[in-house]
Amino acid sequence: MRIYDFKGFPNPTRVRLALAEKGLHGDVEFVHIDVPAGEHRKPEFLAINPSSAVPVLELDDGTILSESAAITEYLDHLTGEPTLTGLNAKERGVIHMLQRKVEEGFLDAVANYFHFATPGLGPDIEAYENACYGERRRDTALRTMAWMDMKLADSDFFAGDRLTVVDLTAFAGFAFAGFAGIETPPEFANIAAWKERMNARPSMAVLS
Amino acid sequence: MRIYDFKGFPNPTRVRLALAEKGLHGDVEFVHIDVPAGEHRKPEFLAINPSSAVPVLELDDGTILSESAAITEYLDHLTGEPTLTGLNAKERGVIHMLQRKVEEGFLDAVANYFHFATPGLGPDIEAYENACYGERRRDTALRTMAWMDMKLADSDFFAGDRLTVVDLTAFAGFAFAGFAGIETPPEFANIAAWKERMNARPSMAVLS
Repeated sequence: MRIYDFKGFPNPTRVRLALAEKGLHGDVEFVHIDVPAGEHRKPEFLAINPSSAVPVLELDDGTILSESAAITEYLDHLTGEPTLTGLNAKERGVIHMLQRKVEEGFLDAVANYFHFATPGLGPDIEAYENACYGERRRDTALRTMAWMDMKLADSDFFAGDRLTVVDLTAFAGFAFAGFAGIETPPEFANIAAWKERMNARPSMAVLS
Repeated sequence: MRIYDFKGFPNPTRVRLALAEKGLHGDVEFVHIDVPAGEHRKPEFLAINPSSAVPVLELDDGTILSESAAITEYLDHLTGEPTLTGLNAKERGVIHMLQRKVEEGFLDAVANYFHFATPGLGPDIEAYENACYGERRRDTALRTMAWMDMKLADSDFFAGDRLTVVDLTAFAGFAFAGFAGIETPPEFANIAAWKERMNARPSMAVLS
């Protein structure tokens, strides 16, 4: 397997953590795509992923998988039990629901704020600005954070007492939010405790 | 099982078709939520789904599932083989990728255009306008349509020769696009043939 990505960026972080949690990180060859330099918009990369986003997973038979949640879905069914996306219909439904809410209402909302309402990756990369929509999405991210803090009142992780894909999406979202200048309000004590649990996981070694 | 929705709206359409394709439509009690009258924002419904969206699936044990793709994930694993979301890791990865691309780049893009750049559901419901972003998202929807037409050049359905959740998301997207005034360009012959195949399916009876 080969992954095209940019280490440290939000969506690559989600997939690298999924690989580590599944014990698959050593089976992958990483190909660095220099996104801040615009390499993701050059013909060579567009031939791999026309939507220009990283990460992309290329299977040994040449199949291309993009979209982080889809890559995680693949990896989770590759070996052993699907530990990240649920074992039965109800678990799968709940985990997919929470993953989508955290993705749309938090991680993607932070991304919209960063790209549309701040200088983002600089004028060569950010061809579109829309401060009004970007600020609106920052509000959404903060509202979602409040809901996330509430979700963590009853369990160690977002979908119960074990880690799932929801936690990986959330972790990447908080890293991106910090980078984009959206601080986590200090009153969200459940989120603070969850961050400590996440940072203590052995899988975090693959990010450093 | 109970579903809170508004018959004919895009996301309810996705889930009603999934129910019909899985042979589960008769097992569900439907509860009408009058979205154009703002019923989805009243306290009674917000207690069911704080994000105010339809459809919502309520299981017999009281579990609430929102997000159409997550509801379909649940339904697909409820009985028999998962026919809509793939049978193995690779199928699951490809189907989740395509479903997400059609959702984000087409169905959600049409929704953003409709709600932000047209009168949408009227001034009582549409509290936020952003014509610039809405028009940008219409462009995205049209670009995604071109890619979808290309995808259908080699197979009867988006993820191969059998119907999957990707086709249900796309079908709801085309219905919404037509309603919002985004016509399918006539040169997209593969899409036109696919629409005929979709309209001929027995599952369509649940929409009338």
